[in-house]
Amino acid sequence: MTATLLLPRWLLTMKTGEPVQTGQAVLLEGERIAAVGAAADLMALHPNATRVELPEHVLMPGLINSHTHSAMSLLRGVADDLGLMDWLNNHIWPLEKQWVSHAWTRLGSLFSAAEALRGGVTTLNDMYFFPEAMAEAALQAGIRAAVSINVIDFPTGYASGPDDYIAKGVAAYEKYKGEKLLQFTSSPHAPYTVSDETFVKLRQLSEQHDMVMHCHIHETMDEVNGGVQQHGVRPLARLEKLGLMNERMIAVHMVHLTDDEIAMLAKNKVHIAHNASSNLKLASGIARVADLDAAGVNVALGTDGAASNNRQDMFEEIRQAALLAKGSTGQPTVVNARRALEMATIGGAKALGREADLGSIEVGKLADVIAVDLSAPECRPVYHPDAQLVYVAAREHVSDVWVQGERVLKQRQLTRFNLSQVLAEVEDTVAKMKAGQGA
Amino acid sequence: MTATLLLPRWLLTMKTGEPVQTGQAVLLEGERIAAVGAAADLMALHPNATRVELPEHVLMPGLINSHTHSAMSLLRGVADDLGLMDWLNNHIWPLEKQWVSHAWTRLGSLFSAAEALRGGVTTLNDMYFFPEAMAEAALQAGIRAAVSINVIDFPTGYASGPDDYIAKGVAAYEKYKGEKLLQFTSSPHAPYTVSDETFVKLRQLSEQHDMVMHCHIHETMDEVNGGVQQHGVRPLARLEKLGLMNERMIAVHMVHLTDDEIAMLAKNKVHIAHNASSNLKLASGIARVADLDAAGVNVALGTDGAASNNRQDMFEEIRQAALLAKGSTGQPTVVNARRALEMATIGGAKALGREADLGSIEVGKLADVIAVDLSAPECRPVYHPDAQLVYVAAREHVSDVWVQGERVLKQRQLTRFNLSQVLAEVEDTVAKMKAGQGA
Repeated sequence: MTATLLLPRWLLTMKTGEPVQTGQAVLLEGERIAAVGAAADLMALHPNATRVELPEHVLMPGLINSHTHSAMSLLRGVADDLGLMDWLNNHIWPLEKQWVSHAWTRLGSLFSAAEALRGGVTTLNDMYFFPEAMAEAALQAGIRAAVSINVIDFPTGYASGPDDYIAKGVAAYEKYKGEKLLQFTSSPHAPYTVSDETFVKLRQLSEQHDMVMHCHIHETMDEVNGGVQQHGVRPLARLEKLGLMNERMIAVHMVHLTDDEIAMLAKNKVHIAHNASSNLKLASGIARVADLDAAGVNVALGTDGAASNNRQDMFEEIRQAALLAKGSTGQPTVVNARRALEMATIGGAKALGREADLGSIEVGKLADVIAVDLSAPECRPVYHPDAQLVYVAAREHVSDVWVQGERVLKQRQLTRFNLSQVLAEVEDTVAKMKAGQGA
Repeated sequence: MTATLLLPRWLLTMKTGEPVQTGQAVLLEGERIAAVGAAADLMALHPNATRVELPEHVLMPGLINSHTHSAMSLLRGVADDLGLMDWLNNHIWPLEKQWVSHAWTRLGSLFSAAEALRGGVTTLNDMYFFPEAMAEAALQAGIRAAVSINVIDFPTGYASGPDDYIAKGVAAYEKYKGEKLLQFTSSPHAPYTVSDETFVKLRQLSEQHDMVMHCHIHETMDEVNGGVQQHGVRPLARLEKLGLMNERMIAVHMVHLTDDEIAMLAKNKVHIAHNASSNLKLASGIARVADLDAAGVNVALGTDGAASNNRQDMFEEIRQAALLAKGSTGQPTVVNARRALEMATIGGAKALGREADLGSIEVGKLADVIAVDLSAPECRPVYHPDAQLVYVAAREHVSDVWVQGERVLKQRQLTRFNLSQVLAEVEDTVAKMKAGQGA
């Protein structure tokens, strides 16, 4: 079994209460973290391990992007400065209807995986059609992914209706069951696109296969108001009644919440995927993250897809989560640097039901770790390395990424595939799309 | 006179209403922009001009950082997650009292100038003590700067009281008068640190020397409430009465404003320097930028100092201004990409009274221009180059910067000074500070 000894200047394990440490090393053996301890001791104990010197780096757990639509990198910047329904109805959905295929999804997902790895993300919680395409892309890139069995009540180029979406998704799940980098989620799209009957089917699917659920909920006031009009209650109440509000659920966005709803989420252990930039850009609003946090709700962070958050950058979302919670509440101490980092690491791991394996650097956990180089002039001086990661460092400072013990980014170069070739395919596909829509 | 012909893939002049163009070139002669036109024509007309190919770049006006405290880069990350007055009284002011000197200010300012240029900023509107130190740093770095005659009513290591601050500032102004890269501002620190008498003296100084004024105003509710308690009126009303609310004033922050105050600002042509990230981080609040914009108030963008906004990154502020205006109002069309770019270019030029010379690429204006390379995978595909600059591109994509016709950043390398040496001095100074405070 190959052994690698990582020797960082600073170690940030993200174990609860453990501060940034110096003089520590981390031993990776095979897929897992085999030891964490004094660098001198580990060097003496493991003289044959490959040593990786990280002299100006923070070593930390890989970031978990708790909500994205990877394939939509092909639509990055296609339409900006619009409201959610205008953007969906008049731009995104027509384009998707025309162009989305297995090959398109695979290409966009591979392109996003490259962006993710180059930005320190080791796990993507994806939601899109053609789950096989996402699975293929993740396996090629060597990134960990939660692949969605994504269901919407109306037909698309992918499937004809709810049962068809589910059947195709389950076939993908059966095909890839056992792949260590993958898990599957049962993913109703949103309360305004999914019927009660379909919600219940997906709940049952989740119970049957022990899958996490993944759903957009309370993203906009229009959604909440429309839900009240159609069903007589707010979407959250409807989903609670349908048995979906529990620790299996990753509720995405959750911008509009009452105090009672926050109490219900805490009581039922629902996980939140906070997408700060996307919620701002689409003018959905500002989620009550400080209140959720105070109530003990587990908050994870996501980028959302590249069409609504053109930068698929978890460093940006960490910083934004910390800043926005303060500015929107008037409380400068909420969501401090450490808390924001937790949301992007252990918070994401908990949401995906993977707390035992992911989210912190601890012996026995999977070796999903990243090195962030703080030697750039913009990152100096360094008073507090953890705060520096939140308020200063950016994705371009990520130098190395290990996923399941494999070094998939080495000194900023992807090791699994040729990015230039992917980029050329992206340009070719986009040129065809532009020609097709006359843009 | 040296002539340089810039040949970008995309030209964004920022002239009102002018879209992104392709096939255009820009000729720089000496300090100014000598021609803008079809690339083929300008190549034929100026065969001896040095050609700079920018094949995947946007050429645009240099960014104007309308509010910062450059020297505070030495305090980047020294204390985070705190409220303004705790942060000032218990961290920043004691450290400044102990350490700030001419040499300290010069070093921090030079370090910030490097960060600014590497991030596409060609003009800094600075506010700090030791104006000679800032002037020296700007001249060495080759960056344009508005240097402050900064006044606070209490004594510091720099000066003993208002008259001393003013005398020292005027001496600096006299010394550097005529330097083309510099202008001086008359800068009362804030309503809670400056008396009526001093405000009037600084207004008179501004009138006497035709200087722009630069002042923190309505940053926090505490400031506004304290002003009402002490003076019986809100700070803005007090300053209006003192004759300071006019087109000479760059009012910084302006987070807390009533509708009547916005109307007054519009009527009196006061300029606003919006510091979105700093206002969020210190939990000061969210400025009403969409309302200011709708009322016709000129809004410029600033980073604030590195101690309250650890990333001195105008690309971040542009993106944040666009996102925050949408998310805080629920209106997805406000502060669109183009408008956010205007705030960071021509808006800043207007605020500094330099609209005739700066802020857009037009024949006769000063040659302060930057090239942003959109070839990185994260910046692809490109549907709309202007929106791409706001929602995707980041400061690391700035490849080249010209200030007053001189190429001060060439393919990401600073041409005027050795950054490694500056960085070594920064580390040395910070090590002394850490030892001195026992950290």
